[in-house]
Amino acid sequence: MKFTLFQMEDQRVLAKGVFERLGTDSPNLIYKRPDGFKFEGVIKVPDHVGAFKEICAKLVDPENGVIKSLSEIGAIGHRVLHGGEKITAPVLVDDKIKAVIRECFPLGPLHNPANLAGIEACEAAMPGVPNVAVFDTQFHQTMPPEAYLYAIPYEYYTKYAIRKYGFHGTSHHYVTLATAKFLGRKIEDTNIITCHLGNGCSMAAIKNGKVIDTTMGLTPLEGLMMGTRAGDMDPAAVVRMIELGSTPREVDTILNKKSGLFGVGGIGTGDMRDMLDAEEKGNEQASLAIKMFVRRIVKYIGAYYVLIGGPEAIAFTGGIGEFSRPIRRRIMAGLSALNIRLDEARNEACFGKQGVISTDDSAWKAIVMPTDEELMIAKNTESIVSK
Amino acid sequence: MKFTLFQMEDQRVLAKGVFERLGTDSPNLIYKRPDGFKFEGVIKVPDHVGAFKEICAKLVDPENGVIKSLSEIGAIGHRVLHGGEKITAPVLVDDKIKAVIRECFPLGPLHNPANLAGIEACEAAMPGVPNVAVFDTQFHQTMPPEAYLYAIPYEYYTKYAIRKYGFHGTSHHYVTLATAKFLGRKIEDTNIITCHLGNGCSMAAIKNGKVIDTTMGLTPLEGLMMGTRAGDMDPAAVVRMIELGSTPREVDTILNKKSGLFGVGGIGTGDMRDMLDAEEKGNEQASLAIKMFVRRIVKYIGAYYVLIGGPEAIAFTGGIGEFSRPIRRRIMAGLSALNIRLDEARNEACFGKQGVISTDDSAWKAIVMPTDEELMIAKNTESIVSK
Repeated sequence: MKFTLFQMEDQRVLAKGVFERLGTDSPNLIYKRPDGFKFEGVIKVPDHVGAFKEICAKLVDPENGVIKSLSEIGAIGHRVLHGGEKITAPVLVDDKIKAVIRECFPLGPLHNPANLAGIEACEAAMPGVPNVAVFDTQFHQTMPPEAYLYAIPYEYYTKYAIRKYGFHGTSHHYVTLATAKFLGRKIEDTNIITCHLGNGCSMAAIKNGKVIDTTMGLTPLEGLMMGTRAGDMDPAAVVRMIELGSTPREVDTILNKKSGLFGVGGIGTGDMRDMLDAEEKGNEQASLAIKMFVRRIVKYIGAYYVLIGGPEAIAFTGGIGEFSRPIRRRIMAGLSALNIRLDEARNEACFGKQGVISTDDSAWKAIVMPTDEELMIAKNTESIVSK
Repeated sequence: MKFTLFQMEDQRVLAKGVFERLGTDSPNLIYKRPDGFKFEGVIKVPDHVGAFKEICAKLVDPENGVIKSLSEIGAIGHRVLHGGEKITAPVLVDDKIKAVIRECFPLGPLHNPANLAGIEACEAAMPGVPNVAVFDTQFHQTMPPEAYLYAIPYEYYTKYAIRKYGFHGTSHHYVTLATAKFLGRKIEDTNIITCHLGNGCSMAAIKNGKVIDTTMGLTPLEGLMMGTRAGDMDPAAVVRMIELGSTPREVDTILNKKSGLFGVGGIGTGDMRDMLDAEEKGNEQASLAIKMFVRRIVKYIGAYYVLIGGPEAIAFTGGIGEFSRPIRRRIMAGLSALNIRLDEARNEACFGKQGVISTDDSAWKAIVMPTDEELMIAKNTESIVSK
């Protein structure tokens, strides 16, 4: 359970943290203030409601809290994984919205139940305070059917809702708005590729400010190679992996948790910094994993460049996109056919902050644009409750 | 069992045909001469050996045959689906090669056993005549590891040989050679995208005359949308389809036989001509299927354009690639960001024959290049046995 408390007048973070390992013997609460104060410790709680109450207690703690009373909290915004096709914008949570979140349990079997539990914990702990749901899928719902349908029998779509939904929507949306502003363009005149590279990785093709394609699919497994996720592969390889003796569920777990940089690199982690270190020390398998990671991104940039019809910029975001200068350098090295070139000095200077990293003589721009999903959710929430 | 008899001096087809429905109650032999003569009829044969003997009998038939004696046949070339990683060129069949074909049974469970049976039938019917195997995978074996590996645990590659192999290699090879000649370029200076669009569809990125990437994978299922094959999709969607109640094998069959244009279009066929007719008559689902088909190709053209670093040409081949002017038009309409434009008149004129279809002011060329897999196999075979 991650949380951030914002003061919306100046969009300032008052406190943030995470309640980890809920449901285990040793749930761990981390609570931080921007001034550097940090609490970390095991606090036994029975469930999500209990966890949320502990978080609230920290926020109003007379010594280390940041507000005097919970009544200062005007609204709570929730990140919810899957809203299916119906949800295309942030919404005030009511019984109908809860029913939609429940309907989407089969589409997000691990996340949606936890997301609903989080909402209900807030309702129980802070009755009367409005809850707003911001869905990870919603920004992608402008894709045309030819982008979101799989080429499988049509009934799988009509009966079972199997299609591409896309994820990381809050991040792609934030970065799209921020990039439009940075470029001085109206949102409806903004054509960009957003490239969210973190532990999870996804890209979106943005035309006239709207998503026309994205790499993640029915689930967050499809598309780019990620920290532990496989991304694209021959669908028949999934069948083969099952026929080699694993259950479908086990194969799903392997593809989500044991694949990607972790599965190929063979150094016991999927963290890009560790991969780069291992490559530096001569580890060829780690080097191969990095090459695969970069190549997939380069291919999708080519695909989206054409789909968009020539974008104005590519925006890198996420932990790797914002901070990994070597990965950005290697991606850019693959794009020479698209008349864009890295400015080495700008790339070196751009570490976790926004800025152009392409040369001035490039035909379009590469930029770094730090994402802020929490702030995006807070802004969405504020705009809903202020109506 | 398809066959073509060539006279290699002038690369002329003497006779060709197919023995269909082998293993059923009514095996059917079609035998054709270029002068228009055609035999078609049910001939009961016990097995591949019997089928091959009937084909031989037609070739030497005093009235309708094309040669006097089987001794005029100098060699037999065989198309074999899967040669794994070891086979990178055409080879004379011996016990070692047969063992490789057998080792690849798990990779091509439907085709490789039949291919081996075909070879053994020829050995039995025409002892002493050399057999040459030309593998559908071999032309693609120049791909670098970062192109052919899936981002799954590395052991799946080392233990089970699960990787991208690519198929339609004989066609991509033929078209690459023919396109190089057409463009007046040395093969090692040829950088093109080959686009084989038939009932099966695949593309290859050719750099310096060699494959650096291709759309088909471990099996011919991956990549483009095809007549009945799904192509790319979220690997997790395969798991979901199984969990909805089908066995892995059934899902594999659905993805190979009931998907693609057939599965989405809903008009009971995956034939592109029928799809276009249905669209013309206002069928929206057929129209959607065509849009999906075109979009996938456009995306891969963008991806390969960047990987190659700016190719000199894209070559369309296969039944759709050579004959479907509307599909070529729609693909080209999606490529404006790559500075290439269709010349409408040239496109209209190009129906099953080679020619440029892009405008003269395009930055690179789109061409139509009819494929001839049989001739390619015959040439490969000749070059092997003449050594």
